[in-house]
Amino acid sequence: MHITRLMSYWPSRLPQLVITRCLQSSSSLHAKVAVVLSGCGVYDGSEVHESSAILVHLSRAGAEVSIFAPDIPQMHTINHLKGEPSTTNRSVLEESARIARGKVQPLSGLDAKVFDAVLFPGGFGAAKNLSTFAVDGPSMKVNAEVEAVIKAFHSAKKPIGLCCIAPVLAAMVIKGCEVTVGSDKEEGGRWPNAGTASAIEALGAKHVRKDVKEIHTDTQNKIVTTPAFMCEAPLHEIFDGIGAMVSKVLGLTKCN
Amino acid sequence: MHITRLMSYWPSRLPQLVITRCLQSSSSLHAKVAVVLSGCGVYDGSEVHESSAILVHLSRAGAEVSIFAPDIPQMHTINHLKGEPSTTNRSVLEESARIARGKVQPLSGLDAKVFDAVLFPGGFGAAKNLSTFAVDGPSMKVNAEVEAVIKAFHSAKKPIGLCCIAPVLAAMVIKGCEVTVGSDKEEGGRWPNAGTASAIEALGAKHVRKDVKEIHTDTQNKIVTTPAFMCEAPLHEIFDGIGAMVSKVLGLTKCN
Repeated sequence: MHITRLMSYWPSRLPQLVITRCLQSSSSLHAKVAVVLSGCGVYDGSEVHESSAILVHLSRAGAEVSIFAPDIPQMHTINHLKGEPSTTNRSVLEESARIARGKVQPLSGLDAKVFDAVLFPGGFGAAKNLSTFAVDGPSMKVNAEVEAVIKAFHSAKKPIGLCCIAPVLAAMVIKGCEVTVGSDKEEGGRWPNAGTASAIEALGAKHVRKDVKEIHTDTQNKIVTTPAFMCEAPLHEIFDGIGAMVSKVLGLTKCN
Repeated sequence: MHITRLMSYWPSRLPQLVITRCLQSSSSLHAKVAVVLSGCGVYDGSEVHESSAILVHLSRAGAEVSIFAPDIPQMHTINHLKGEPSTTNRSVLEESARIARGKVQPLSGLDAKVFDAVLFPGGFGAAKNLSTFAVDGPSMKVNAEVEAVIKAFHSAKKPIGLCCIAPVLAAMVIKGCEVTVGSDKEEGGRWPNAGTASAIEALGAKHVRKDVKEIHTDTQNKIVTTPAFMCEAPLHEIFDGIGAMVSKVLGLTKCN
């Protein structure tokens, strides 16, 4: 039964295409950007606020946005109220559709030739569903589709943006690249996962310290990263850091 | 098993308190604001981007934020990829915790005396879990806890902000109030649920036409509303309309 069948009163659907509406007014000068999600919720999927911030900033820049996620089960599902795994599991693609308002495609269909850039928000999903970093640390494996996407954009010299914990994906796939996940010191609790920086170094990448509103750009590899929720910072500062990342990624496309 | 037990590598938790971190630097001049969620996802809960926008704007204003949701089952759970109900249902409180990064309290604990304002994002959850508007239209019932909260803030002359479809809650509870859900005409698909305006009139409230970046303020009742995703508009325009709503709500508190 379709959702609208359940609405005896409500006459039609809520807008589904709004996030990608910028498509309709885009010109050839506007960048085509793929966003890769990993579920919906910080502890088992994409971080909701990081994902939304990326989409708000892309919308303001007039980018043409398509959203993708791997069509796989989540590593597990976390009850976000209790912080504990629940007994039933969920699909990465279906949960990502909550952030995408239904408009999400299987990651297997992401063709780097069609896009100018790709962006990865953070959240544990990047470390559980897109890779095994959350359990394996520097011995991590990256999902084969994710690895192929990152390699394809990198080979085509198209920019890749990643925030929060997602930079570990680039660190694993693009050997010797430079990324930031914030600080390598806890600094009184401001950076509770500061150890991630040393894991990035163990992966053969270079970690660069940056604050929450800053980005690091690996110019040679066209990789742009920002700490986001790796930092105990107010939400608007995370929003602004992600804005700087999106702006830099768009600036590195051939549309600019 | 707690989530961190599963992280053989990851040394500690990701920040949980970040959304409400502004609490820690707040002064007595900063408004204390309650945000009421109804799940996580446009078709069966709170609209993710509206919720995030509210929290970003509150964070930038330095407000002290607490997040609440009723501890009830969802009306149903929608597979957002297919737009169809799924067989298993979910908890409004547990799903709201995905947006709140774990920091959500049962709505029964919301004491209007402790807060300066209350905000309701939209999404079908407002019309399915916080009320029965999605199935009953103008014959709707409002969840008893939601009704009590709205009445308590209204009686105390404290501002109430609502966006998207959530203004129907005020229209039902505060007889004769003024709200906007955008346009009462579809205007070529820009307002696909324009019929909601006449339902609001049928509830005895006054509907005022506004565009997506605008707000309507019912000065007498201190109710501030904005259309948000009732409009087929780019995401950043919805973000900006919500920013105007948050700003006006904070301006109506006694903290200003």
